[in-house]
Amino acid sequence: MQPNTDNVFNFSAGPAGLPKAVMEQAQAEFVNWNTLGTSVMEISHRSKSFIKVAEEAEQDLRDLLNVPSNYKVLFCQGGARAQFAAVPMNLLGSNTKATYIDAGYWAESAIIEGRKYCEIDAFDAKTTLDGKTAVLDAKEWVIDKDAAYVHFCPNETIDGIEINDLPVTDKPIVADMSSTILSREIDVSKYGVIYAGAQKNIGPAGICIAIVRDDLLDLASDVLPSFMNYKVLAEKESMFNTPPTFAWYLSGLVFKWLKAKGGVKAIEQINREKAALLYDYIDSSSFYKNGVHPNNRSLMNVPFQLDKPELDGEFLKQAEQRGLAALKGHRAVGGMRASIYNAMPIEGVRALVQLMEEFEQQYA
Amino acid sequence: MQPNTDNVFNFSAGPAGLPKAVMEQAQAEFVNWNTLGTSVMEISHRSKSFIKVAEEAEQDLRDLLNVPSNYKVLFCQGGARAQFAAVPMNLLGSNTKATYIDAGYWAESAIIEGRKYCEIDAFDAKTTLDGKTAVLDAKEWVIDKDAAYVHFCPNETIDGIEINDLPVTDKPIVADMSSTILSREIDVSKYGVIYAGAQKNIGPAGICIAIVRDDLLDLASDVLPSFMNYKVLAEKESMFNTPPTFAWYLSGLVFKWLKAKGGVKAIEQINREKAALLYDYIDSSSFYKNGVHPNNRSLMNVPFQLDKPELDGEFLKQAEQRGLAALKGHRAVGGMRASIYNAMPIEGVRALVQLMEEFEQQYA
Repeated sequence: MQPNTDNVFNFSAGPAGLPKAVMEQAQAEFVNWNTLGTSVMEISHRSKSFIKVAEEAEQDLRDLLNVPSNYKVLFCQGGARAQFAAVPMNLLGSNTKATYIDAGYWAESAIIEGRKYCEIDAFDAKTTLDGKTAVLDAKEWVIDKDAAYVHFCPNETIDGIEINDLPVTDKPIVADMSSTILSREIDVSKYGVIYAGAQKNIGPAGICIAIVRDDLLDLASDVLPSFMNYKVLAEKESMFNTPPTFAWYLSGLVFKWLKAKGGVKAIEQINREKAALLYDYIDSSSFYKNGVHPNNRSLMNVPFQLDKPELDGEFLKQAEQRGLAALKGHRAVGGMRASIYNAMPIEGVRALVQLMEEFEQQYA
Repeated sequence: MQPNTDNVFNFSAGPAGLPKAVMEQAQAEFVNWNTLGTSVMEISHRSKSFIKVAEEAEQDLRDLLNVPSNYKVLFCQGGARAQFAAVPMNLLGSNTKATYIDAGYWAESAIIEGRKYCEIDAFDAKTTLDGKTAVLDAKEWVIDKDAAYVHFCPNETIDGIEINDLPVTDKPIVADMSSTILSREIDVSKYGVIYAGAQKNIGPAGICIAIVRDDLLDLASDVLPSFMNYKVLAEKESMFNTPPTFAWYLSGLVFKWLKAKGGVKAIEQINREKAALLYDYIDSSSFYKNGVHPNNRSLMNVPFQLDKPELDGEFLKQAEQRGLAALKGHRAVGGMRASIYNAMPIEGVRALVQLMEEFEQQYA
């Protein structure tokens, strides 16, 4: 049986699949955008045509997340890992401490980078509940009274863990939302800084969004590279340096697609249906398992293991044959991982559950 | 007369036009790359398929520039402005001084950023020769004996100035080649670090190449963000953080296009013909002028002014009507600027010269 490439459902954790309608539009206008006779990536970022793209993308994102007017929306380069350094360098001011909540791989990665810049009080929020991995209730998180800010990662892409709480604190809350942004409703006004690499729910790799509260713009370190300085980016409307224009344009198309779908509230409902389909099937089966407690299961990234790991290869082979791509789990966790970001239609999840059922019947 | 958008010659200084054949290939395989049923931007950067793209791009660039084996080729994020900070933070070590040669806007911008990290001895290399702007002979450049390195910008995109000399020094030479890389033959072994934002001669905005000599990889500052650390990037094969995969892929297609054209030596000859066509016409006319001495005229960026600046708007209008796009000069210089990077065919320059002739006949 030849792999199906006509109608692929792409479960990649990132860079992830983008909405099909967006990709088809981008392809249609790839070499002649806006009747200019060139691609959108071949024009000046300072041209009227591109500035309109940039401004619309920002406004659409503001609409989608209901971003208050005292927050700047910045389009940055370098991905979330750049923000791991940018956050302390932008926010510490004369302070020397910060608290980081640790519940997975990406929170830990932010801690490692952050320790180059300040003393980090890392609070291990992982626990075990009913034999499954869970996250302690936010009321139990210990936050240093001298912390300049509290950093956490609400969705752990690799571990498949989601935190639905917010730190209980009067310090600025900083969240790495790379794999959760735009997947469910949030109240931006509760945060100091939200950042997110684009390559899951926004656009292609190479652009990163930062949403920064105005009062946090004046604390930058003297040695912070200017292109990472939130204030510089705010003053220059994210064009201090040449921005990744094609990634910005494509992100803007994704925002318009999401607005047309009914916005974050509507996509959240679909996301909950998609996740429930998958987790319910896993829980109903003894052939598959997911080690995360239902309180903290990710809406976006669903790792699961086969009861017989020696069949992983065969499962992946059959998945590929059905056009179910990129299901191999992260090497740190093993097994499978289905990333079901906004762009994944519910039909893709149904097709995956169907494969899982048939595979179970075949091999259980 | 409606603007011509069927056959546009794009003179944008950057983001600049890319080779037409490359754009057409990218469009054709945009939603189904490599028969995967997805775009190249929708797959993991760690997948075998993408790693092949990444490795081929690096090898092709090595072939094109004849990069010696004791140099790393890094694919970075943040553009050349990120390198303005990355260079001192990577190279100073325990040193506190560097010499920067100043011959234009971008060299000056690198100096401003660099002064956050070290004491910069800026040598003003601009001079006047026969009433035109020129650059002092490199033998006259004064280089601080304690400098950790010597930085210069061989092609000034805005000023239209090219430096064909190299600093005379035993210090590592660092060159911002954003608008000259791959346009003419260079001897990489003479440099410590070469860097170049992609959006002129390489690919779309959002990726930046750094070519770094091995012995310079161990000098990084403790506060250098890891994603900008040459050693980290070298060890992680430019995948410490998720790279801008689509920009990397497209850059790879440009490298293959350039190899097929005969490589740098062949394109240099075409570039010299293109530039000569334009400069010779300007010099033969009293209606247009270029203020740079022939010794230092840029092969890539040709600023020119009309004798009657009040006609600038009309010139640009007629240019647009002929599909000659983005000729407006930088606000710092005024008049026109024709950026004639590798992707600009000689027919585009001929069409521009024809317009200039006819416009001169109409208005002189």
